Amino acid sequence: MIHPKIWIRTAGALSLIMSIAFIICALVAAFYGETPCLKAFSLLALVLLAASGVITLLNGRPKADITLKDGFIITAFSWIFVSVTGAFPLLLCGCTSSFADAFFEICSGFSTTGSSIFTDVEILPRSILFWRSLTHWMGGMGVLLLATALFKGMGSNMQNIIKAESPGPSLSKLLPRISDTAKVLYGTYIILTILEFVLLLPAMSPFDSMTHTFATVGTGGFSCYNDSLMHFDSYYVDTVVTVFMLLSGVNFGLYFLLVRKEFKAAVKDEELLFYLKVFLVCSLLITAYMLLTDRFTSFADGLSKATFQVASIMTTTGFATTDFALWPSFCLLILFCLLFLGGCASSTAGGIKAVRALIVGKITKRHISRLLHPNAMVNLKINGRQVEMSVAQNTISFIFLYIVLFFIISMIVAMDGKDMVTTFSATATCLGNVGPGFGEVGPMSNFSGFSDPIKIVLAFTMLCGRLELFPLLMIFSPRFWREG
Amino acid sequence: MIHPKIWIRTAGALSLIMSIAFIICALVAAFYGETPCLKAFSLLALVLLAASGVITLLNGRPKADITLKDGFIITAFSWIFVSVTGAFPLLLCGCTSSFADAFFEICSGFSTTGSSIFTDVEILPRSILFWRSLTHWMGGMGVLLLATALFKGMGSNMQNIIKAESPGPSLSKLLPRISDTAKVLYGTYIILTILEFVLLLPAMSPFDSMTHTFATVGTGGFSCYNDSLMHFDSYYVDTVVTVFMLLSGVNFGLYFLLVRKEFKAAVKDEELLFYLKVFLVCSLLITAYMLLTDRFTSFADGLSKATFQVASIMTTTGFATTDFALWPSFCLLILFCLLFLGGCASSTAGGIKAVRALIVGKITKRHISRLLHPNAMVNLKINGRQVEMSVAQNTISFIFLYIVLFFIISMIVAMDGKDMVTTFSATATCLGNVGPGFGEVGPMSNFSGFSDPIKIVLAFTMLCGRLELFPLLMIFSPRFWREG
Repeated sequence: MIHPKIWIRTAGALSLIMSIAFIICALVAAFYGETPCLKAFSLLALVLLAASGVITLLNGRPKADITLKDGFIITAFSWIFVSVTGAFPLLLCGCTSSFADAFFEICSGFSTTGSSIFTDVEILPRSILFWRSLTHWMGGMGVLLLATALFKGMGSNMQNIIKAESPGPSLSKLLPRISDTAKVLYGTYIILTILEFVLLLPAMSPFDSMTHTFATVGTGGFSCYNDSLMHFDSYYVDTVVTVFMLLSGVNFGLYFLLVRKEFKAAVKDEELLFYLKVFLVCSLLITAYMLLTDRFTSFADGLSKATFQVASIMTTTGFATTDFALWPSFCLLILFCLLFLGGCASSTAGGIKAVRALIVGKITKRHISRLLHPNAMVNLKINGRQVEMSVAQNTISFIFLYIVLFFIISMIVAMDGKDMVTTFSATATCLGNVGPGFGEVGPMSNFSGFSDPIKIVLAFTMLCGRLELFPLLMIFSPRFWREG
Repeated sequence: MIHPKIWIRTAGALSLIMSIAFIICALVAAFYGETPCLKAFSLLALVLLAASGVITLLNGRPKADITLKDGFIITAFSWIFVSVTGAFPLLLCGCTSSFADAFFEICSGFSTTGSSIFTDVEILPRSILFWRSLTHWMGGMGVLLLATALFKGMGSNMQNIIKAESPGPSLSKLLPRISDTAKVLYGTYIILTILEFVLLLPAMSPFDSMTHTFATVGTGGFSCYNDSLMHFDSYYVDTVVTVFMLLSGVNFGLYFLLVRKEFKAAVKDEELLFYLKVFLVCSLLITAYMLLTDRFTSFADGLSKATFQVASIMTTTGFATTDFALWPSFCLLILFCLLFLGGCASSTAGGIKAVRALIVGKITKRHISRLLHPNAMVNLKINGRQVEMSVAQNTISFIFLYIVLFFIISMIVAMDGKDMVTTFSATATCLGNVGPGFGEVGPMSNFSGFSDPIKIVLAFTMLCGRLELFPLLMIFSPRFWREG
């Protein structure tokens, strides 16, 4: 049941996309006069273009149906492929000589995590900074979804591949054809991108605006400054970024409802309401606690910092306007919980996703009702529609695996001998695609303190989190391969 | 649907049991010539005896059926009643002048947690040390189960009360009559107690042997020495205690199978095998890591320390033979996971329970099988029997509530301003009824550093964990009372 033709076809499409991305980066390098980077990006673009051409010539258009199993394999290998390929510019431009570092950085980019191994990002070439941010943008909505939106030939077979790549317990198929769905999603994404880019322009250079927009709408978190958004020290920037982080953490299907003028359905979406409630409650709790313990100077400043940080962690972006690792335990604990929750399904955010917490919460509520009133019939509904059994099972399995993986990866990371707060938060932040953690991996620090093997483990952790566990776990499971 | 008669009847039975317990403690006080304690225990015993007598005279034998809802209320209030009553001796004997401290200590006793607020336990009167340990023994198997085993009149109505008190997703009803089941469970418990008492006698005084036996078979963890079991510094004691901790963490229903000579069924029990596997793997991992990093001097010594500590945390006893809070992160992480897991259902251990982890693990495995082979029919079975839907739902709801409660209580505890490791591990250790945590609440430390309100919160957390969340959560829920 394995279809090598489809695998190769996907690899060809991804090579083409990567070569286009590298050409854009080469243009940036040319603009800033970064000759070594220009050469590196051009060379890589040419190689990938050639590879893609050869593959397209040799491989006809595949006809077979792709099972979900194929979808898992293709998705997992595609993401490893783009991450490995994407690491080369960093090596060729001399930003680092360690493959582990380059791979970590680009996995962090594509998975929209935003954790870095660079102690000083400001000395990096402009084109490399641009490339890092571009990976956020590409990874946010998904590279395979991008291929589906761009290339007509991918079309009909992509259903199960997109399912494996898309975040959330069920794929929100907006239109009957998957290629149309891909176009709508990417269209919305591009509109958000342009809007934020324009809104940020008054406060920063076009380059800064572009890179920070990519990092916001992709909910990534890479900044071209060592002190992240503190660099701009502007309430205007903080507010714009807060709003766009929140917008990017919303189910993109809701924007489609807005376009179709179904405002009521969009505004009453249970996941959206839950997501906003969590955002408000956490922001207010932090503001109140910090004001009561005299750590914030004024309510306005406090609210701005708290809302920004809550939005940043909740949407798994990871920007910082303050060194929150220094906040008291009470606030850290709230942020720690948010490291796990994440944004909405079908958004660019990572984590467990609000809808999953909502489903398990409803299962629990129903169980308690049944305990008290054995004859009551309570249905499991979200937005008025019955939650399918398979979705409920996916949710439970996903959360269970997420917690088990969190503990297992933490144990491996602990072998580097860091303290528990650093170990736990580094694992949680990578698995949830957030970016910064606490302790030695706080927002004003980075991941360079880990050993190379642990960096590779964390890089795979980020991909694992981005692809919602199953695809990456499966390709590492011997049983999966034995079954053929 | 509320039956005050049954509530009062239960209160009467518990008063009688408490007065018997206080009479025993008074005898201990008399033996050691502790006059103030003798007076305190005698006075309390008389008051409770009188109360119980009056209740029995006024209240006839109730006939109504007890719903699960009644069961929750009766269980919750019963445990609060014995904890409040049990706190008085500590106040009257002058061990502490703070009610919060006394309540914390006795909740810790009845819930078999074993966390203490006493910096120096060696200066406490013997009768108080005995009382602390006795609460472990009474709480381990359950005070309401004890009432059912002792008093014939309780009988037929107790099913739903015992269900609310008993740990695990389903009550293992060994015999058709609940009073017979209670007798069998307590019989087994007494045999284990006598066995360990006799085995420990060669290595310590009868008093030490008795108190440490109560703390072991109840998986409690109070010791009468500040340095816990390190005081004895004996491999023999460590080994005996390790074995009895493990035996007390096993489903007591399995001993009943042994008595009925169904050896095969007992040995093949899936939960038992999972529990033993976790114990072995964690012990070996810790031993290996500590040997490789030159922290253990010899394999034998290392294995002894590691198996003891793993058994102690896993069975939620909480004894220590070494200050494991000083162990490296890798080992702490393993212990931290075990703080959540706990022992088997229907044992004296706390935590989430092995069978629940097993059930969710099987749900996940089945989900993955279905993803890959949509037409495969995979049943959810444990020990060859189908897992009932209600049990699966109880499991999911319980684990979800456990995690949510863990985070919420951690946030409240964080208001005391302790570091994250202390806050998280204090909450986890109280909710799981383990005893020691890490950081400022390590095995060689205690809970005296918390403020009074937080001590009360943690005391309720322990009861909440011991009663498996639902009963205590319900009496604190306004909706529960509104519904009548």
